[in-house]
Amino acid sequence: MNRLRISEILESKADLLNKEVLVRAWVRTFRNDKFITLNDGSTIDNIQVVVDGEADYKEILKKISPGASIEVKGLLIPSQGKGQDVEMKADSVVVLGESNANEYLLQSKRHSLDFLRSNLHLRMKTNTFGAVMRVRHTLSYAVHKYFHTKGFYYLHTPIITSSDCEGAGEMFNVSTFSPNKAPVDEQGEVDYKKDFFGKKTSLTVSGQLQAEIGAMALGQVYTFGPTFRSENSNTSRHLSEFWMIEPEVAFNDLTDNMDLAEDFIKYVIRYTVENCQKDIEFLDKRHSDEQKSLSKERRGKLGLIESLNYVLDKKFIRVSYTEAIDILLKSSPNKKKKFNYLIDKWGVDLQSEHERFLVEQHFDSPVAVYDYPKDIKAFYMRLNDDKKTVRAMDILFPGIGEMVGGSQREERLDLLIDAMKSFGISQKELWWYLDTRKFGTVVHSGFGLGFDRLVSFVTGMSNIRDVIPFPRTPKNADF
Amino acid sequence: MNRLRISEILESKADLLNKEVLVRAWVRTFRNDKFITLNDGSTIDNIQVVVDGEADYKEILKKISPGASIEVKGLLIPSQGKGQDVEMKADSVVVLGESNANEYLLQSKRHSLDFLRSNLHLRMKTNTFGAVMRVRHTLSYAVHKYFHTKGFYYLHTPIITSSDCEGAGEMFNVSTFSPNKAPVDEQGEVDYKKDFFGKKTSLTVSGQLQAEIGAMALGQVYTFGPTFRSENSNTSRHLSEFWMIEPEVAFNDLTDNMDLAEDFIKYVIRYTVENCQKDIEFLDKRHSDEQKSLSKERRGKLGLIESLNYVLDKKFIRVSYTEAIDILLKSSPNKKKKFNYLIDKWGVDLQSEHERFLVEQHFDSPVAVYDYPKDIKAFYMRLNDDKKTVRAMDILFPGIGEMVGGSQREERLDLLIDAMKSFGISQKELWWYLDTRKFGTVVHSGFGLGFDRLVSFVTGMSNIRDVIPFPRTPKNADF
Repeated sequence: MNRLRISEILESKADLLNKEVLVRAWVRTFRNDKFITLNDGSTIDNIQVVVDGEADYKEILKKISPGASIEVKGLLIPSQGKGQDVEMKADSVVVLGESNANEYLLQSKRHSLDFLRSNLHLRMKTNTFGAVMRVRHTLSYAVHKYFHTKGFYYLHTPIITSSDCEGAGEMFNVSTFSPNKAPVDEQGEVDYKKDFFGKKTSLTVSGQLQAEIGAMALGQVYTFGPTFRSENSNTSRHLSEFWMIEPEVAFNDLTDNMDLAEDFIKYVIRYTVENCQKDIEFLDKRHSDEQKSLSKERRGKLGLIESLNYVLDKKFIRVSYTEAIDILLKSSPNKKKKFNYLIDKWGVDLQSEHERFLVEQHFDSPVAVYDYPKDIKAFYMRLNDDKKTVRAMDILFPGIGEMVGGSQREERLDLLIDAMKSFGISQKELWWYLDTRKFGTVVHSGFGLGFDRLVSFVTGMSNIRDVIPFPRTPKNADF
Repeated sequence: MNRLRISEILESKADLLNKEVLVRAWVRTFRNDKFITLNDGSTIDNIQVVVDGEADYKEILKKISPGASIEVKGLLIPSQGKGQDVEMKADSVVVLGESNANEYLLQSKRHSLDFLRSNLHLRMKTNTFGAVMRVRHTLSYAVHKYFHTKGFYYLHTPIITSSDCEGAGEMFNVSTFSPNKAPVDEQGEVDYKKDFFGKKTSLTVSGQLQAEIGAMALGQVYTFGPTFRSENSNTSRHLSEFWMIEPEVAFNDLTDNMDLAEDFIKYVIRYTVENCQKDIEFLDKRHSDEQKSLSKERRGKLGLIESLNYVLDKKFIRVSYTEAIDILLKSSPNKKKKFNYLIDKWGVDLQSEHERFLVEQHFDSPVAVYDYPKDIKAFYMRLNDDKKTVRAMDILFPGIGEMVGGSQREERLDLLIDAMKSFGISQKELWWYLDTRKFGTVVHSGFGLGFDRLVSFVTGMSNIRDVIPFPRTPKNADF
């Protein structure tokens, strides 16, 4: 007799009713020596097992406690109790692995997110983290499905790199040298020629430059892989290792790029809402309970499902940086000095408080801000005719701030070289990048979307450490 | 008027015939001042543009050479020439980006794979590498589609790790210390407490141990991400950074595991053969041309498409290690001392030549070898009752040798501890891994499949550096 996953049983419950089924799963609760709830991770739903004929089971039942793994064979019958349509009437119960009730940390009581962060090896067994991980999976799948259907090719850009895409520093070194025992050259400098790759190498902060190469050949590509930042930020918004999605499209200008980003985000959220309904409903309830525990000022305006529908229903507002600054200059929190960073002139970078004001107060919609001052953006963005702004765009979300950052790339060789000079980017190191502008250069655009931040938005988990199975943050690479 | 990709035009050629279309793409060839072949990476197929009325175009045509990017508007018409059904009659041609014919490296002549490896930024523009990358994409998509459809959850296991899964060493260090300037403790040892993560960290060699945690919670998970090995192997089979797929399934034993691996491999290959027909046909021809250039002894028995069908059509043979050793001991190349490594007794590891003998000579089929001696396998594999062998399995392919390595995991706490002791694996470091056996332990199994090796098999590219866009190998992390 084949074992069925609980998801399979519940999906086919009409067909399986009054038939014998075999389940292997972990015990969630065991009440009154009679009712066992089981979960096998396939779905957030448990299946209830009713154990009858206590005498037969006495020795077995002693070994059943939360966390134990058991095998149950029995009839699937209509449930007598509340909370489920069907349940199993046990014919046989076998304990596969016990779980010492005095030692097992996940008893039926609720655990703080913080406690669970110290027990990453157990937390996916909880309802909350099971739901988050299934949503994360579904969003990932939607990402691949979207791009595949649109004719994009998935490009595995390198993790170990000898170039620094953003010129921003904050990269992890990758080496096989023993620290403090690296060979030195005649000048007493570390001799990277003798390191594994024959030069200084780091973990990538972005696959964009390589994705541009891909787009120049394959037309439309995307990356979806880990990226790294060694910034010492111990916040609920930063991970040292995070997954990023970076599409890059030949012949797309900035408007096409904003269209793509909006269509993409809506697609993956809609797909997930439609395919993870039960998990999202659970997380919506969890989010709402969490909100209730917050002071009124810190509560969000929208519930989780409301905020997902908000994004799905609105046509994203598009506004230039210059217009956005005008709005902010004239805004009440700026005049009343409520912003921590007051906006005093054109040219300053937008802080999270400004982004949220635009989205949540002024426009009441997701907003794409475009044409930023060149000095606050990266070297590879296309210069506008005003010579002051570049074809950058950021998409801002309620609650979360920046969800997407992208640009039309500078395809004109001479202007790219000018920008590299002014940003201090080595032309010698990026000769291959310059080559893409020398031979058959074309208009092209792309963006980056921090996948973990998207999962955070879709699950309502406000700490980004709670949306990835094994978060890496300063002073923490456990498990 | 909207630009169409060449793949879109060719897919809808019946509808578009005698209509005007707009194409933006790169020039492959330009013959007789009249025929331009264009490719935009969306498909291996080019579209031919016929330029008429030379006088109008004289200045423009001067700027058209291989590698240039152009925009063409014109009627899609039935082709007069050979090699294509339809072509474009140009109404207007605009040069977007020139390509200096004296400097551009990809002229129409053929380039050696080795030459292209020094020009990674250009090689995806060739027919061969365009086809390889589209096949790589399609295989990736099939991986996600297979697991999603079967109810697996995609798990993003960590890249930066403080544990060494295999206990095998050969890991890259990850650090923010300046080499030779790392702080030291009172004993004069490097003080990793002061490093970014507060301990010694490396790049992962496998996500398996974390995937086991996932399987204990979500039931069926898979990883698909980069893994790293700092082995100093400059061969055509090794990359320092490679993509690995690792499914892990609660309640699966070794037979289920072999069933899963066979079903999975056949699915992704079949999906790719069906969805990348033109690219595979091109690569089959390339492979066949390459074979002709080899000496007779070095030629493979099968063409590329033949070898794909070979895998799809055969039921993989399953044979125990002990049976395999018997076969090899009695084999003609062993008796005639033709093997480089002669098989003299039970217990030795199989070399590539032995694996290929079993697959290509003895069984004439892909082969799964199982129940290996415990001493030549990893600590986490389940001990058999004979106390000598473990529930490991390798799947061996023609030409390529080991395609999959997997095992049923040791789920019994006491036996796992014994194995860790005998392999010298720290229990203190892997306390969380031991916990999975303490609380609700279950039978479970999984395997690892090197994705790049699979791409190599499906594309017929014999050097693994030619199946990933930006290969990382000893002394090479360029681009």
